[in-house]
Amino acid sequence: MLVVMRAQATEDQVRAVCKKVESLGYRAHPMPGAQRTAIGITGNKGEVEPGTLGEMPGVQEVIRVSKPYKLVSRDTKPDNTVITFPGSPVTVGGPDLAIIAGPCGVESRDQAFTIAERVARAGAQFFRGGAYKPRTSPYSFQGMGEDGLRILSEIRDRYGLLIVTEAVDNESLDLVDQYADVIQIGARNMQNFSLLKRAGRARKPVLLKRGISATLEEFLMAAEYVMSEGNYKVILCERGVRTFADHTRNTLDLSVVPAVQRLSHLPIVVDPSHGTGKRNKVTPLSRAAVAVGADGLIIEVHNDPDQALSDGVQSLYPDQFDSLMQQVRQIAAVLGRNVAEAGTSAAAAMSRMARASERLSSRA
Amino acid sequence: MLVVMRAQATEDQVRAVCKKVESLGYRAHPMPGAQRTAIGITGNKGEVEPGTLGEMPGVQEVIRVSKPYKLVSRDTKPDNTVITFPGSPVTVGGPDLAIIAGPCGVESRDQAFTIAERVARAGAQFFRGGAYKPRTSPYSFQGMGEDGLRILSEIRDRYGLLIVTEAVDNESLDLVDQYADVIQIGARNMQNFSLLKRAGRARKPVLLKRGISATLEEFLMAAEYVMSEGNYKVILCERGVRTFADHTRNTLDLSVVPAVQRLSHLPIVVDPSHGTGKRNKVTPLSRAAVAVGADGLIIEVHNDPDQALSDGVQSLYPDQFDSLMQQVRQIAAVLGRNVAEAGTSAAAAMSRMARASERLSSRA
Amino acid sequence: MLVVMRAQATEDQVRAVCKKVESLGYRAHPMPGAQRTAIGITGNKGEVEPGTLGEMPGVQEVIRVSKPYKLVSRDTKPDNTVITFPGSPVTVGGPDLAIIAGPCGVESRDQAFTIAERVARAGAQFFRGGAYKPRTSPYSFQGMGEDGLRILSEIRDRYGLLIVTEAVDNESLDLVDQYADVIQIGARNMQNFSLLKRAGRARKPVLLKRGISATLEEFLMAAEYVMSEGNYKVILCERGVRTFADHTRNTLDLSVVPAVQRLSHLPIVVDPSHGTGKRNKVTPLSRAAVAVGADGLIIEVHNDPDQALSDGVQSLYPDQFDSLMQQVRQIAAVLGRNVAEAGTSAAAAMSRMARASERLSSRA
Amino acid sequence: MLVVMRAQATEDQVRAVCKKVESLGYRAHPMPGAQRTAIGITGNKGEVEPGTLGEMPGVQEVIRVSKPYKLVSRDTKPDNTVITFPGSPVTVGGPDLAIIAGPCGVESRDQAFTIAERVARAGAQFFRGGAYKPRTSPYSFQGMGEDGLRILSEIRDRYGLLIVTEAVDNESLDLVDQYADVIQIGARNMQNFSLLKRAGRARKPVLLKRGISATLEEFLMAAEYVMSEGNYKVILCERGVRTFADHTRNTLDLSVVPAVQRLSHLPIVVDPSHGTGKRNKVTPLSRAAVAVGADGLIIEVHNDPDQALSDGVQSLYPDQFDSLMQQVRQIAAVLGRNVAEAGTSAAAAMSRMARASERLSSRA
Repeated sequence: MLVVMRAQATEDQVRAVCKKVESLGYRAHPMPGAQRTAIGITGNKGEVEPGTLGEMPGVQEVIRVSKPYKLVSRDTKPDNTVITFPGSPVTVGGPDLAIIAGPCGVESRDQAFTIAERVARAGAQFFRGGAYKPRTSPYSFQGMGEDGLRILSEIRDRYGLLIVTEAVDNESLDLVDQYADVIQIGARNMQNFSLLKRAGRARKPVLLKRGISATLEEFLMAAEYVMSEGNYKVILCERGVRTFADHTRNTLDLSVVPAVQRLSHLPIVVDPSHGTGKRNKVTPLSRAAVAVGADGLIIEVHNDPDQALSDGVQSLYPDQFDSLMQQVRQIAAVLGRNVAEAGTSAAAAMSRMARASERLSSRA
Repeated sequence: MLVVMRAQATEDQVRAVCKKVESLGYRAHPMPGAQRTAIGITGNKGEVEPGTLGEMPGVQEVIRVSKPYKLVSRDTKPDNTVITFPGSPVTVGGPDLAIIAGPCGVESRDQAFTIAERVARAGAQFFRGGAYKPRTSPYSFQGMGEDGLRILSEIRDRYGLLIVTEAVDNESLDLVDQYADVIQIGARNMQNFSLLKRAGRARKPVLLKRGISATLEEFLMAAEYVMSEGNYKVILCERGVRTFADHTRNTLDLSVVPAVQRLSHLPIVVDPSHGTGKRNKVTPLSRAAVAVGADGLIIEVHNDPDQALSDGVQSLYPDQFDSLMQQVRQIAAVLGRNVAEAGTSAAAAMSRMARASERLSSRA
Repeated sequence: MLVVMRAQATEDQVRAVCKKVESLGYRAHPMPGAQRTAIGITGNKGEVEPGTLGEMPGVQEVIRVSKPYKLVSRDTKPDNTVITFPGSPVTVGGPDLAIIAGPCGVESRDQAFTIAERVARAGAQFFRGGAYKPRTSPYSFQGMGEDGLRILSEIRDRYGLLIVTEAVDNESLDLVDQYADVIQIGARNMQNFSLLKRAGRARKPVLLKRGISATLEEFLMAAEYVMSEGNYKVILCERGVRTFADHTRNTLDLSVVPAVQRLSHLPIVVDPSHGTGKRNKVTPLSRAAVAVGADGLIIEVHNDPDQALSDGVQSLYPDQFDSLMQQVRQIAAVLGRNVAEAGTSAAAAMSRMARASERLSSRA
Repeated sequence: MLVVMRAQATEDQVRAVCKKVESLGYRAHPMPGAQRTAIGITGNKGEVEPGTLGEMPGVQEVIRVSKPYKLVSRDTKPDNTVITFPGSPVTVGGPDLAIIAGPCGVESRDQAFTIAERVARAGAQFFRGGAYKPRTSPYSFQGMGEDGLRILSEIRDRYGLLIVTEAVDNESLDLVDQYADVIQIGARNMQNFSLLKRAGRARKPVLLKRGISATLEEFLMAAEYVMSEGNYKVILCERGVRTFADHTRNTLDLSVVPAVQRLSHLPIVVDPSHGTGKRNKVTPLSRAAVAVGADGLIIEVHNDPDQALSDGVQSLYPDQFDSLMQQVRQIAAVLGRNVAEAGTSAAAAMSRMARASERLSSRA
């Protein structure tokens, strides 16, 4: 922490601030400058609380300096975290880009299977689809609940896709932890600390979406909550922030990708569907997300966006998703990263199904 | 909803859009203008989903128009909601301003009683203090939990203050509903829809804080969630929004008070402590909040801000709170509203204690 | 400036940063803390430029600390600036609130006189009205130019109102300086530094509106530009900032009033008309602005808002302005400040006209 | 425009609004819906002014719909604008990406030549460098003025680079129009309408930077100002917007690129240097800008950022710029666009010098 004194502050005032700082158990480092004195404060016990320092005579301003995160920090773990999945060659945070695709919500078995077949064929390794939907209106479709989770589980068995789906409270989190491969925490719950702690006690990796107006520090602190409970498998996700700009639903902040990579070892993926809220912006921003260095994409795809019960306006048609995949594959190559080939899904699905059936029998 | 066509859109394109609209079960109202045609869309079944209309040839833009809230709306209930408390003359939303004061968190019995004694004497009718604290860092003080709730309950019995305290998940909500008089839902949980629904099934009034980047519509929709479950006693609270401005922690948006009052019958109070995050701004912004027409204030007061375990930097000293009360009392009078007199607490407390002991015996 | 080192930075890295700092001509103050070292930097020659310090090995972050303004600062001039007008008892920044009222733009002699008569009678001391209008569209009404200035000048002579009107470039600034009593610099030109310097060489006081997304520091630096050229008569004006909120045209940031008053000696007035952009919000926010401690108000009033060539949607009817004046007069009294009485304009206008005719003859 | 009535509005109220609309010279299109009636308004004379419609009994809200721009719109000119330069093969808006590079400000002949030599060799076709610098502080380096312009002119002759430099007022604009190839209007002047009109009367193309909090509509309207005066050669530039996010100086809004391309025929380039304000973010965001489909980049390069008189913190070293060029060249290829090869500058410079000497002799 730093206390900036007014230009005309007296030496007595500076001394009084230093004395107060020491009385609170910290160390004071006065730094006389040309115009004014600043006083650095360091402590032994983590974060310094400014208390009433800002009110003392001669004080201009109190500035917080130290960053409070630990486990998420590269200071603690210099190497990138690469998340793996039991019995699967898929990783998040390594050279392969994670491609997560599917509808906003699971609406029916037919709808989910139709879309899953297409995204698997296009090269996605993860299927997304909400069984629990946080909707702005209580009168909107709220998701199929556990029935939706069962459909997702069948999709994994059938197409070898890993399942990413959202938990909205402790009850749904336990179920998602049981059925899915990745537990999604939505943007609206990024500071639902009770839920974050519960996710920290789950077994599965957590995909944590950035809150709509979260600073980088708050975003990383939310991940810290999960990690502080013992779950170190956190995937961050940029999904657009709220600004004055009205040509997109949110403003996709791609600069947060290199910013996260500088401060943290955790992987970060980008969601251009929510990040723009407009179908015609999803593909260009997906290219940009891969070019900026993201570790993956999460894309909404729907076979019949007109009839989608949520977010139809931003869902790609399956053909558009095919084209997106071709484009990002080439961009990824420029950065030395891989996107799984399309059309390989037949073979891949076979080996995946083999793994899936193993898993099924091991559960039995 | 409104579909705006491009200037050079053909009549065929306009017709195709109208046809599509009708096929989705809505009615289309084409409006040819000087430069371009717009097509109004109305429906019988609530909100219209834009689906893929925006992608059709000749379409420039799709604009959502209708507001989705019902129970919160003055359209549904033209008269102001006035919230009452069993066995108490206190109201929220009537001519008396609701003054809610106390520390950010309950830290100990002594601390809480010391502050309660002072705010009661100054004229506050409600005591605030968190037993469950949503903190950005998992390493910060997280609240005393149920022990804190017990202390709050004793404060009600001793000082006749009604208790406002925050619930952070379903478990704590059940306890808060049991111990407190008003259940606070914090800004970070404004779109924790699972928690909102649970609050809608509670018996006590809900004080709902505006999310840090919530639009007016989202704010009202969050209240709609609570009301849609049957709890109509909702108090809205403006507590500052996130902007680029850095001279305060948040930007207090006082214009939302008349905006809410125009659209909704629910009462709205203002929290200048979180709204500014700086002790020296709390009193001027409290005056402004009363002048703009708010139904009450929620103010952080601490007897020893230097040692506060949270938010010490924005807590008033008890003497500052006395002064604040005197100032807002005069402003309130200009608007024809009342703030309880200071020093009346002795008599008031007596009658309150009488009621409190009744309640105690009726529980036994 | 403060350089924050990474937790695992070596002593050599700390030394290297200190050496670099000294090589740039500054002094380095290393402060070892529990987790990491921070290095304070002070200099003799004003602002320190961070250069490439942020790129050195072991450096986490570089934080700018010192505030670059001088003449606007209370450090330089502890007492409030009170602006006076030759031959007039009116002041800005003293106990009397400055009430500035009138139409968005001067549209005709009749319109301007009709409105001036009403606002003078209601107690305003200043008449506002644009002769040069900065409009978002090149096809909108751009103002009457020098003809408008002549009408404004006649209004001063007739009603004794001081004239506030906007300059949009160097040419118009010279004319405004000649015809008006206060030169307004609009929000869009707050960082038009060429214009600010020209205003700094004008004779008349400058009313400087806060840019739509200006931080407090940028706002004060814009005033510093004017003052650095020798014109110390600057009146600041808060007129709303741009945020995500959509229930008002801008978000009126009343907290900037006490923030300015803490850092600067300059007076600050509030413009709730542009600050909200909605007629029905102007009066409540005017009350709030006075309650927060503003030194005055600037209000749009139009006799026929339906036919206004600009901003009709936010202009008060003269009767609404009468009511606003009554309300703010009472709020002002609570803060020990005065708003001129209504109905006194007859007498006042006489003495003003006397002064006006003196001025006229002295020009001859 | 659209007037949304309250749910309980009477038919009389609807009729009264329609009548008022017609009395203002517009046409009213009532659209009865399930819950409420909306009234579409169309007009013959451009933009409809809402006036006092919002205040009429039964009215809930008034929504502006029509977009006011004309010349910038694809509605007016469906094909992309490709900007050419007399005697040069360079274009902006065609398949070749425009690469604009150089220091923030021209500080000396040596500095400018050193950097120009490097960026030319790396493949840039344009040299940027301010001779007039809009600085937040009046005490910061304000640029070399016409001396700087002369240096820039020599750079064109020596290295065959086209010159982009900023004009800050009418005086400097005339000089820039004379010396440079592209007139830059900075973000702070995006709504300096007086300057925009003057730029509209200049002969050279205008590079118009998006204001720090400009909506897409305001950005396009600023271009409309230039075009409405007859200069159709406008290059738009995204350079980051102001948000709450603090990990970069501004938030680079790459989604505006496809949004502009959908609505307008004008080319758009991206400035990741100002857009991020951090050297280590410039290269990743440059890749992303090309990937999203921008028509070019504008990059700050400095040979000695430590000693730069402005913006050193965001300037690339020449070697970093070489690497950036290699990366964006590959990304551009994926999109079927070209970036000039490095090392070709020798030959290129020869032919350019030939052209330059021609130009010189033709001036004589």
